[in-house]
Amino acid sequence: MSDIMAAGPRAAGSLQRQVTRLSAAGTERAGDAVSIEEPLEIRLSFNDGQSRREQSVAVTMRTPGADEALATGFLAGEAIIGNPADIRRVEHSGPPSLDKGLRNVLRVELEDWVRVDLEKLKRHFYTSSSCGVCGKASLAAIAHEAPPRERSGFSVSGSKLRQLPAALRERQCEFTRTGGLHAAASFDAQGRIRRLHEDIGRHNALDKLVGSCFREGGLSGFGVLLSGRASFELIQKAAMAGVGLVAAIGAPSSLAIELAEQEGITLVGFLKSSGFNLYCHERRVLEA
Amino acid sequence: MSDIMAAGPRAAGSLQRQVTRLSAAGTERAGDAVSIEEPLEIRLSFNDGQSRREQSVAVTMRTPGADEALATGFLAGEAIIGNPADIRRVEHSGPPSLDKGLRNVLRVELEDWVRVDLEKLKRHFYTSSSCGVCGKASLAAIAHEAPPRERSGFSVSGSKLRQLPAALRERQCEFTRTGGLHAAASFDAQGRIRRLHEDIGRHNALDKLVGSCFREGGLSGFGVLLSGRASFELIQKAAMAGVGLVAAIGAPSSLAIELAEQEGITLVGFLKSSGFNLYCHERRVLEA
Repeated sequence: MSDIMAAGPRAAGSLQRQVTRLSAAGTERAGDAVSIEEPLEIRLSFNDGQSRREQSVAVTMRTPGADEALATGFLAGEAIIGNPADIRRVEHSGPPSLDKGLRNVLRVELEDWVRVDLEKLKRHFYTSSSCGVCGKASLAAIAHEAPPRERSGFSVSGSKLRQLPAALRERQCEFTRTGGLHAAASFDAQGRIRRLHEDIGRHNALDKLVGSCFREGGLSGFGVLLSGRASFELIQKAAMAGVGLVAAIGAPSSLAIELAEQEGITLVGFLKSSGFNLYCHERRVLEA
Repeated sequence: MSDIMAAGPRAAGSLQRQVTRLSAAGTERAGDAVSIEEPLEIRLSFNDGQSRREQSVAVTMRTPGADEALATGFLAGEAIIGNPADIRRVEHSGPPSLDKGLRNVLRVELEDWVRVDLEKLKRHFYTSSSCGVCGKASLAAIAHEAPPRERSGFSVSGSKLRQLPAALRERQCEFTRTGGLHAAASFDAQGRIRRLHEDIGRHNALDKLVGSCFREGGLSGFGVLLSGRASFELIQKAAMAGVGLVAAIGAPSSLAIELAEQEGITLVGFLKSSGFNLYCHERRVLEA
């Protein structure tokens, strides 16, 4: 069974709209599939040592669907949860979404043993537009936070890597319909895409991927494919998820390369069927 | 004189790196221009009614350069400043940037008369990855915050609009070198690009554009061109800057369309030399 299908029906994440289409040939009214963008508020219920407490920890503009995976991936990326058993219950509430009867608040109830560091979370609140870097202004601060871990031994051949862009295009059914979605996908050593999530925000797509794999042993046995650019924060999320190889269709940033190098992650950029660039930790890409 | 040149030398925003290039033809070492991504912390010094106070209000991952414009545009978009005279002084401090001897903290000293609503700013702190929507979970809340204003009477013909993608490509010198930068540009009724800013974050590129025009009468006499998708937050920033027409090379999201409709902004998407989609307030696009 396809993982994409499991993530929801094909119509998910978009709505139909009438637009005016202007071209050299003239003007016409036409239908257009538009990606849905809506706020998702993530609320935590947790034990603060004395009593249970509820706190809103993030509002992210996302494409509705896989909201539980998105929240799980986000919380894992922030090191608030360390394994699936930390989550007691998840429920939607709040205002209805435009999509599929979803709603736009997700309440995540943590088990009593989970300690939540609100100060650490607050650094997220300094984040401005499109950045996602929680006020951690230096790489040193980040390195300190990521639990030291054995990096994945995952490896893949260059020729298999070069097949991924075509495989991604084929699987990105939503993208071809709306032109507006980023994708994050896991792939195996045979170059097959195993799981794919899409979202209007690139960070959300990766959070959804991390979250959806969280209960099934995580991502360390796979590579991660990004449909766009590799930014610092995407590498940070990959590092927290134990990923050993990240391959981006687009360009990596300077800080993404620096962090990948430091965290022992193999970083591939400008991945095309004709070739790609290898930025660091080349050992996971085999010659064949 | 070109506005791009005025924004800094062509080499700005990127650095050279050696990478391994793998293709079907084999493996080689090659030079690669990488977009710089670094945190910029924006610190405000302001009069809180009793004494002067200093507060960090945002950390954004940006491409160094035009930092003062970025901070100015950001503060204008948050309605913290309303006109250029509100800013008394701006100075760089903090750790050095990789680029051009810049530094990664920008301290903005506001005049005594400027009142800063920290509670409103705090809503920003709820923002997570790549979203930039400050915890304002409903359109109603946003509409309430934007000061009511006369929308720009700017208009442009469809044929001039269709010339913009080629003009943008030509002007995006950085993009062609690193493959990693978003652009936001102003254009006039003759379809000429007047000012262009690039950044690794699409919201930063628009903040830089808004900020760099802030002292020169603003953007209401121009259209705004976006190199990528039009998200909710970009439309929100355009609305705050009094822009009447936004044209995106990429797709708009559902919420971007909804907000543009509500704010009286003409929204163009999928802009190509062959044609484009018009989503709302069509009157600013003329037939000729």
